[in-house]
Amino acid sequence: MTSVDHDSRAAVMDLLRGVVDDYLDWREACGSTAGPPPDSARHLVRELSGRLARESTPWPSPLYLAHMTADTPVAVTLAYLCALLYNPNNVSSEASPVTTQLEHDVGDDLCRLVGYHPARGWAHLASGAHAANYEALWIARNLRRLPRAAAEDPPSRDLVADIPDIRLANLPVGRVLDLVDELARRGTLERVRRLAQRGRSSGKLLFARNAHYAWHKCADLLGFGSEDVESVELDRHHRIDLSALRRRVVELIERGRPIVAVVATLGSTGEGSVDDLDGIMRLRDWCEQRHGASFSVHVDAAFGGFHRAICLDRDGAMLPHDDPALSVRLKPHVYAAFRALARADSVTVDPHKCGYAPYPAGGLALRDRRAAAVVASRSVYFADGDRQPYAPYTLEGARPGAAAAAVWAAHRLIGLHAGGYGRLLGGCMASAQRLHQRFSSTGQGLVSCYEPDLNIVNIAARDEIDPLLDRLRADAAAAPMTSLWVSSNALADEGERVLRLCVMKELHPRDLDQVCRKLRDARASSAVALRDPQAAYTAGRASRTP
Amino acid sequence: MTSVDHDSRAAVMDLLRGVVDDYLDWREACGSTAGPPPDSARHLVRELSGRLARESTPWPSPLYLAHMTADTPVAVTLAYLCALLYNPNNVSSEASPVTTQLEHDVGDDLCRLVGYHPARGWAHLASGAHAANYEALWIARNLRRLPRAAAEDPPSRDLVADIPDIRLANLPVGRVLDLVDELARRGTLERVRRLAQRGRSSGKLLFARNAHYAWHKCADLLGFGSEDVESVELDRHHRIDLSALRRRVVELIERGRPIVAVVATLGSTGEGSVDDLDGIMRLRDWCEQRHGASFSVHVDAAFGGFHRAICLDRDGAMLPHDDPALSVRLKPHVYAAFRALARADSVTVDPHKCGYAPYPAGGLALRDRRAAAVVASRSVYFADGDRQPYAPYTLEGARPGAAAAAVWAAHRLIGLHAGGYGRLLGGCMASAQRLHQRFSSTGQGLVSCYEPDLNIVNIAARDEIDPLLDRLRADAAAAPMTSLWVSSNALADEGERVLRLCVMKELHPRDLDQVCRKLRDARASSAVALRDPQAAYTAGRASRTP
Repeated sequence: MTSVDHDSRAAVMDLLRGVVDDYLDWREACGSTAGPPPDSARHLVRELSGRLARESTPWPSPLYLAHMTADTPVAVTLAYLCALLYNPNNVSSEASPVTTQLEHDVGDDLCRLVGYHPARGWAHLASGAHAANYEALWIARNLRRLPRAAAEDPPSRDLVADIPDIRLANLPVGRVLDLVDELARRGTLERVRRLAQRGRSSGKLLFARNAHYAWHKCADLLGFGSEDVESVELDRHHRIDLSALRRRVVELIERGRPIVAVVATLGSTGEGSVDDLDGIMRLRDWCEQRHGASFSVHVDAAFGGFHRAICLDRDGAMLPHDDPALSVRLKPHVYAAFRALARADSVTVDPHKCGYAPYPAGGLALRDRRAAAVVASRSVYFADGDRQPYAPYTLEGARPGAAAAAVWAAHRLIGLHAGGYGRLLGGCMASAQRLHQRFSSTGQGLVSCYEPDLNIVNIAARDEIDPLLDRLRADAAAAPMTSLWVSSNALADEGERVLRLCVMKELHPRDLDQVCRKLRDARASSAVALRDPQAAYTAGRASRTP
Repeated sequence: MTSVDHDSRAAVMDLLRGVVDDYLDWREACGSTAGPPPDSARHLVRELSGRLARESTPWPSPLYLAHMTADTPVAVTLAYLCALLYNPNNVSSEASPVTTQLEHDVGDDLCRLVGYHPARGWAHLASGAHAANYEALWIARNLRRLPRAAAEDPPSRDLVADIPDIRLANLPVGRVLDLVDELARRGTLERVRRLAQRGRSSGKLLFARNAHYAWHKCADLLGFGSEDVESVELDRHHRIDLSALRRRVVELIERGRPIVAVVATLGSTGEGSVDDLDGIMRLRDWCEQRHGASFSVHVDAAFGGFHRAICLDRDGAMLPHDDPALSVRLKPHVYAAFRALARADSVTVDPHKCGYAPYPAGGLALRDRRAAAVVASRSVYFADGDRQPYAPYTLEGARPGAAAAAVWAAHRLIGLHAGGYGRLLGGCMASAQRLHQRFSSTGQGLVSCYEPDLNIVNIAARDEIDPLLDRLRADAAAAPMTSLWVSSNALADEGERVLRLCVMKELHPRDLDQVCRKLRDARASSAVALRDPQAAYTAGRASRTP
């Protein structure tokens, strides 16, 4: 044990002693003393702890580049524990006076992170990106149906009477939100919402072919017909093809077919690619000017949302692209996407991915909090506090206040700006770029498929990757702490399978050397037939672009 | 500090030291030493801990009868912490080798708890009852649409050709599951699922008027038209009115209108009432015999599922109703509902309610695991283990392995049988019954509204309850540790507002005395007009029963 390590243990135990004392004092004051845990309980905890230490995947290792597990600071985990002891449920501030307040703070943080105004926008935590994405689309779908439902409701009809049906089908979001306000003022919102529920056709949902697989779950869950879900092809950078999107969107608007949402991805889970969000927002502006009609834009930034901190100053303002405070050079379209994020209608951003918070901590931010009204429900047994309560306006009900405490602590300890998360995630990106450079030529039988937008690298092999993956997995099983951990990806539905390296920590040059050596060794030792990987990659790409 | 308490602290700290040592040893072996937390982090954790201890609602207090917060054993919280340190994500066993195994064990536990066979059924954890209920209804909706979609698919059509359309609309679940098998065998399941997605009408969803408010969220989320959601009236015991349900179900079946599901509630959140599930299952049998058609039954046992342990032996078999091992006398229809639970298609049961596990821990159990096939998706970057992986078959993706560890520990430390959870929850029920008896006459201006089915008591006041609630809340704000905490309920949408006491711990006779005295004192000191509470209650009930 080194002296630094000894200090760590002493410091952690010292903190824990205080936390446990606070908790047991509180229990005593509650008139409830539990007594020491019985032997069976102590035995069970010790066994569990030992098993976790023996068998867990070694994600803190510099050689672990598989799943998106970020290295949660110990103090953040302790913040989770602090709150866990009191078992708060953020469904209602009555059951969680402290952590509901912390979630309000976190909501404001997330608004600022994505560029929304905390007083006009609204953000909250969710169990993960699945729930956040479901909720965003639920809102977008209900908003989309509202104008036509208002046209069917005699006391509301005049509000939309001057709008031709073809424009009503795709009324711009801002106008729909004003309509929500006016319906609420007239007391007809609930009836119009019920009318909107009778409208059976959902409208179209458009996302890129490399969007997260959960988008298909989402579409099915929300009752989208299979014919209403459109996967837009990719360009050669693994981003949504903007020309294809434009053609399709214009066609739908011209035909008066409702578009529920266009989903952009900031950091696809397979490739870490960033869609041209700035282009999508400009397309929307153009549609509004040209057709008086447009669409909701939801951004799945579950992975890439925290990266926006790279270009934020301490007040949450965007720094110039070439500001020396930026810890890494961003591609122009990535910088532009971060700037454009502030104009999207909703953003999914997961603190349990690049926010360095433990599971479960997804997040959803709405640019305009009025949007939540179209999914609102009321419960009979909650009392409201001063701020918008969560349960009646969110997909989920009971929710761990401890998760809010951990995210709150992470934001405060790390900092949502260039010198905080920006420095950490910029370090990951710089390491990913170096990995890409190490495999930028085809000479080694392994080649990086693209220059990464963020911190995921895809590496194609000259040959089938399964023997290579098998080799790496066998090594990892035999010697988890000293082996290289990677996962795999398919570059498109039918495309080339490649190695996927998700770089969740900055790699020291000697670690980078080791990663590269282990990759080359594994390739050399997996006996395989020879093909040209660059050709295979190009072929795979060509097969996707009709 | 008493010596018992001193022992508790020493025992907890001793356990924690071992847990932290295991974790920091593991980190070292991973080649990642973090160093001691900086001063700012220590300060933040200390502040947070102090604030939680000062401001948390005192749910361990015997006077806390408001929210459904169960008294989680310290060892269960420590099990959560153990796993939290390793931050496992049960989305894939690759990211959580230990806790995914624990969730498989927990899934088997939950199957046995509700009476399903673990090898044929399937259960998993969820973020809460909202997610579990959404998922159950997503499955039921997709199953319901499948037979008619098969009839539209030429290569599958022969499988249903001999079934008249009126029966196809409500084909019994068992036959739909056999159809799923056969479609999968023929390789046409995916196509038929896509055809089923084009079917726009969802079919009917029936639940009692006191079902959880989230069922309306659920129906809207899944795209049910407002006309497809039917709230069935209540009988005088606050349970779904079986005659009304029978009339409606028979009418729909006879008209060939699809019924997606009948939702029964075991433990309504407002009243703790238990629907006559045995009657519902007998109704289903009768429909199948009489019409060759029936409906899915989903049970929302988020609150009442763990109570089934009251009548389970250590092998999970039902004990006789009058067996002395039952810690409390169950009403006959409650016992029958627990027995009938094994025959329902799916059950939501929340370990974070009466399972004494911390948030977040909801759960969903399916009687027949084949049902999950109708919502299955595949992701390109997960490798499967030996057992059915979670992400492709569940609503949610990333999920905290630590929650699984805590539930696993709770099940093992407490025991899913009459002598474990049965004894704890039987104690809560017995206390609720005593509270009911104390307020069974109208003499005190306060009267219990019904003999509780489980452990929630509703108490009507002779007068408006708001002044009384204000009084109790003011007391609780001034002296949280020594005041009575209750919540309120509306006995039906338009019904009488009453006090709601949720008894999550066994109350010692002196605690019971104190609860009653504080209630009477608060009533006496809240100046109010006089009415007869029994009459008010009866009037409220009458207004609900057309």
